[in-house]
Amino acid sequence: MTVQRRHDPDVRGFASDNYAGVHPEILEAIAVANGGHQVSYGEDVYTEHLQEVFRGHFGPGARTFPVLNGTGANVVALQAMLDRWQAVVCAESAHINVDECGAPEKVGGIKLLTVPAGDGKLTPELIDRQAWGFDDQHRAQPKVVSITQSTEFGTCYTPDEIRAVCDHAHDLGMLVYLDGARLANAAATLGVPLRAMTTDAGVDVLSLGGTKNGLLLGEAVVVLNEDAVRGMHHIRKAGMQLASKMRFISAQFEALLGGDLWLRSAGHSNAMTRRLYEAVRDLPGLEIPRPVQANQIFAILPRQVTERLQKRFRFYVWNEQIGEVRWMTSFDTTEADVDAFAAAIAEELAAG
Amino acid sequence: MTVQRRHDPDVRGFASDNYAGVHPEILEAIAVANGGHQVSYGEDVYTEHLQEVFRGHFGPGARTFPVLNGTGANVVALQAMLDRWQAVVCAESAHINVDECGAPEKVGGIKLLTVPAGDGKLTPELIDRQAWGFDDQHRAQPKVVSITQSTEFGTCYTPDEIRAVCDHAHDLGMLVYLDGARLANAAATLGVPLRAMTTDAGVDVLSLGGTKNGLLLGEAVVVLNEDAVRGMHHIRKAGMQLASKMRFISAQFEALLGGDLWLRSAGHSNAMTRRLYEAVRDLPGLEIPRPVQANQIFAILPRQVTERLQKRFRFYVWNEQIGEVRWMTSFDTTEADVDAFAAAIAEELAAG
Amino acid sequence: MTVQRRHDPDVRGFASDNYAGVHPEILEAIAVANGGHQVSYGEDVYTEHLQEVFRGHFGPGARTFPVLNGTGANVVALQAMLDRWQAVVCAESAHINVDECGAPEKVGGIKLLTVPAGDGKLTPELIDRQAWGFDDQHRAQPKVVSITQSTEFGTCYTPDEIRAVCDHAHDLGMLVYLDGARLANAAATLGVPLRAMTTDAGVDVLSLGGTKNGLLLGEAVVVLNEDAVRGMHHIRKAGMQLASKMRFISAQFEALLGGDLWLRSAGHSNAMTRRLYEAVRDLPGLEIPRPVQANQIFAILPRQVTERLQKRFRFYVWNEQIGEVRWMTSFDTTEADVDAFAAAIAEELAAG
Amino acid sequence: MTVQRRHDPDVRGFASDNYAGVHPEILEAIAVANGGHQVSYGEDVYTEHLQEVFRGHFGPGARTFPVLNGTGANVVALQAMLDRWQAVVCAESAHINVDECGAPEKVGGIKLLTVPAGDGKLTPELIDRQAWGFDDQHRAQPKVVSITQSTEFGTCYTPDEIRAVCDHAHDLGMLVYLDGARLANAAATLGVPLRAMTTDAGVDVLSLGGTKNGLLLGEAVVVLNEDAVRGMHHIRKAGMQLASKMRFISAQFEALLGGDLWLRSAGHSNAMTRRLYEAVRDLPGLEIPRPVQANQIFAILPRQVTERLQKRFRFYVWNEQIGEVRWMTSFDTTEADVDAFAAAIAEELAAG
Repeated sequence: MTVQRRHDPDVRGFASDNYAGVHPEILEAIAVANGGHQVSYGEDVYTEHLQEVFRGHFGPGARTFPVLNGTGANVVALQAMLDRWQAVVCAESAHINVDECGAPEKVGGIKLLTVPAGDGKLTPELIDRQAWGFDDQHRAQPKVVSITQSTEFGTCYTPDEIRAVCDHAHDLGMLVYLDGARLANAAATLGVPLRAMTTDAGVDVLSLGGTKNGLLLGEAVVVLNEDAVRGMHHIRKAGMQLASKMRFISAQFEALLGGDLWLRSAGHSNAMTRRLYEAVRDLPGLEIPRPVQANQIFAILPRQVTERLQKRFRFYVWNEQIGEVRWMTSFDTTEADVDAFAAAIAEELAAG
Repeated sequence: MTVQRRHDPDVRGFASDNYAGVHPEILEAIAVANGGHQVSYGEDVYTEHLQEVFRGHFGPGARTFPVLNGTGANVVALQAMLDRWQAVVCAESAHINVDECGAPEKVGGIKLLTVPAGDGKLTPELIDRQAWGFDDQHRAQPKVVSITQSTEFGTCYTPDEIRAVCDHAHDLGMLVYLDGARLANAAATLGVPLRAMTTDAGVDVLSLGGTKNGLLLGEAVVVLNEDAVRGMHHIRKAGMQLASKMRFISAQFEALLGGDLWLRSAGHSNAMTRRLYEAVRDLPGLEIPRPVQANQIFAILPRQVTERLQKRFRFYVWNEQIGEVRWMTSFDTTEADVDAFAAAIAEELAAG
Repeated sequence: MTVQRRHDPDVRGFASDNYAGVHPEILEAIAVANGGHQVSYGEDVYTEHLQEVFRGHFGPGARTFPVLNGTGANVVALQAMLDRWQAVVCAESAHINVDECGAPEKVGGIKLLTVPAGDGKLTPELIDRQAWGFDDQHRAQPKVVSITQSTEFGTCYTPDEIRAVCDHAHDLGMLVYLDGARLANAAATLGVPLRAMTTDAGVDVLSLGGTKNGLLLGEAVVVLNEDAVRGMHHIRKAGMQLASKMRFISAQFEALLGGDLWLRSAGHSNAMTRRLYEAVRDLPGLEIPRPVQANQIFAILPRQVTERLQKRFRFYVWNEQIGEVRWMTSFDTTEADVDAFAAAIAEELAAG
Repeated sequence: MTVQRRHDPDVRGFASDNYAGVHPEILEAIAVANGGHQVSYGEDVYTEHLQEVFRGHFGPGARTFPVLNGTGANVVALQAMLDRWQAVVCAESAHINVDECGAPEKVGGIKLLTVPAGDGKLTPELIDRQAWGFDDQHRAQPKVVSITQSTEFGTCYTPDEIRAVCDHAHDLGMLVYLDGARLANAAATLGVPLRAMTTDAGVDVLSLGGTKNGLLLGEAVVVLNEDAVRGMHHIRKAGMQLASKMRFISAQFEALLGGDLWLRSAGHSNAMTRRLYEAVRDLPGLEIPRPVQANQIFAILPRQVTERLQKRFRFYVWNEQIGEVRWMTSFDTTEADVDAFAAAIAEELAAG
């Protein structure tokens, strides 16, 4: 029996970069890694080689742990960084706080100490609002600062901003975790290598997103500071994030990061967002309330315009109360897609 | 850049069915499902269709939840079946007890009440050793009986044996979970449809393994008794088992279960184990201490024979103290592989 | 050997109501309950009788579970009210959020959805900031609204305000938990019976504090709505809050609530706070930034005044940055204590 | 209002040592510690002094943490000794495995690796059945050996047996926790000081029971090897075992351990068990299947004898299937109680 195609491969929307499929080069890498037997659970040659690939990006001290999804990457890494009684300082808008159904709390018993951050970015001053009480037995002990690059609002920290966060955290005896589900997009925006925003800025542990950048499935936890973690292998397994046929995750990551696919894909996605932004920014009736720095645009539109537009293109309402929507591009978004969408936005806005 | 092949696709061993790669028909299904955009997190057309495919096997009441790996399937299902203070009766040898680094306890806070079971199979009598104390606040309350089919020892419950377990559990007010990481192998052995061992036997919830039967990655939790679970969607997400690009897991499962690939692959794997068994069973110096019913053989060999053999073929020592090893076949094991391995076993045994 | 007295029983401060000891009538009740054997773990005659005592206060449907401390009461109750994937809406300042070292998260895996509340009191509007996303698998599901009476800032909800919270929560399909560590103080302030603020206002489950009102040790979880909880006995035990010699907790509570000791003690404590407030409110250099409604006063003082004052009387700095301190009275605070403290405050303020 | 006595202080049974009340010297100590204000949460002078008292028993390196109950002591200590992925080797019959409603698993996510031990005592050989797989990511890592002294069956390890367990555990890189809920009874039996069975034998951390030896409520975790724990204060608080008015737990322990009350009480309790044993051991129809070494006797009786006897004296059936019961004495059991009970046993046995 052959599986039938049940969808139109030419239809793309602006809902999320995880609506996209698998990049052809990634699919090819899976096929290359197929056939024969390889040791399971990470002792295969592809996973072994992947260590080198990541060390090329993050420096010779990097140790890489492929995992299954972004929530898994975050919760595995944070558990390895935290003792049972320690807590994480993060932005209120952080994915770990709002979008993981409480996985950090439920799986890791982790207390999140949140700070409102308008643009999704922490600063030393914001960290200080929660990083206190280090000698108080009644307070879950702040140990990790968690930042997201690019943020959930599509904003990017500069390398200097990350360094300031890291320096401050380290001065407090804390560690820094970077949720890099869209780290490639930030690199493309800033025009800097991955290590400029991570290793060189003082980040201790990070996750690197694969799925949102063209993988079938796969994320990686990268340990830059070996003293920052304990028990990674066991925590990954007990956290149900250990793939048995890991070679296929590692081969995908090799395809992504072994050459420039990661940057080509993220750069293209960003460029498509930029193209959309340029096309709609001056349309009357539309407000762009947040900086556009990576592969997402937030826009405020009249409700009825949004409703009509959603019948034509798939995207999410972010904040119903103020009529804010999110538009996102991905590695496979085409210029024609953007132009058609921009035209539709203009049309529906004009229709009032 | 193209990913290089770093392994020999013609080398196969007898270590585990998860050393094998992806069946070509599965890989093809992934390609078919690729391209264009599909809603993430399970609202795609492939996952929708998969419900039908599974209902074809398990009956019209089945509800299917694709997840990422076997530990995840087990812990998600058990959490959905258990209140916070409830416990699971299982065999001491159960995968959930010995091979998941404590994930049930750590992620779900689940107490496992274990019973020694020589062949890995529970019976009503064995269940009774732990299924008591229902009115005692000091005792974690037995609520789920968990069985594995085929078991960790390669043995198979008959449908009647499963029915006896289910009837007994239900009489006690308990539920039955079936860990079906290798359910297909049991079906092939017994020559019965999947539902004969599950729905028709009274099982409430099961997992169905994909990875060990030729998938790249993917397992499914199948709810047969809707009253047996609560909060499946949230528990899957908080359990870090929700795939964003779920279409690719669902399409693989469709390729596996939409036709007879599941049975062809499992049947072939079993046949290769049987072929190996026939070839070596009478060799002097070799003991086969357990029934051979699915795709694994346990054998007791002189230590030095094992050591020499492991230099030629990959397999695991199961119990160092008594010199017991495990040999396992998979969908891609060939007759030639078996014959070569059997010859090597004979040779090394003869060398003493 | 006799234990020596190692402290001066005539020295009292203004740090916390849990710096006080045991009320003599409570100590007497312990002695009365002593001697002979009584069934442990709550099946004694004192615990049985206590059910009646609490039903007298909270209505015929109340079911009472003595526990060991306030954190325990909160976490036991919330676990019994929540499925694994559900969350609690509470004020940022709630004790469960700031003062329990993450126990709700660590012991119960509970996600707290916090709202800033200047006076520590939730309203329907504030609840709405977090009570949404009921159909979203990515969001921990809001199920319980938790309020504190009197609040961590010493403010009191009126019965109508609690009713508004309860009505709103119930309209949303949610439940209400009331942390009543200082419920008696609120009753004394408002001049209403305990049930006016709880049963009659729609509260589903509450804790009633004993330790802060003169008990040696003991809190109670009171279930008003039987449908709001599951597994109380097992959750109390697994939550390590089951006293073996429970008769001594129950006898203390009988002494407290069987007559009017609860109200006498709380009323006296409140009156002492009021006396202190009247004595210092108009002192130059002192600001009272929050309403004074129960048994605590928050004051803003020059730092050097605070430092000198702390050498004479024990109390806590609440907010170092703005120089805010907290003064608290208890059942055993005397008028002379208050007058001496007020005089010292005036003296030190005058000294600048 | 005065609390009425609702029970007969002259009735005592043989059900459990926690059916007894508070020793008069303990009650007196509570009264002595009462009055005035003392810093809460353990910074009072009684808790400070208690450190010395315990160092007198356990050596100058001992650090003592009063907690609320035995389950709490066990789970706090084990959490402080274990990383998230580590496990405990214990006897199947251990209190932590059978009598805590899964608290170790639920609160601490702790995997218990159990071994059948007929008399409740572990040996190096029994430990080896579970202490393996130290390099296996799939296995929760054995880190602590937990033993109970005296055991749940009333048997006692000799100091040499404990030393053998400790030496073996340490050789394996593991630590030893001793559940000392009835450590005093073992000391009385063996005629050795507390430290002979703990500090001097190599135990790393222990709990010392107070409640079963005449306290109102109170247990202590005693850290002998500072390197064996991390985060004790925070783990105690997050584990909901921190008493606010800790002075009253500490004063009780001072009364117990500051002189010889601990030994007098435990010795008396043991003597009463011995008296009962001597009186009934040779009765026809009665079997004593286990060694009688502390304050409990297990006996096998005809079912109808047990039933009639339970109408006259309170005690527990331990194993219904074989008709095994448990009789336990306590600090307040009198010779007359024992003689009356022994006479009743003889009478009912004679009646057949």
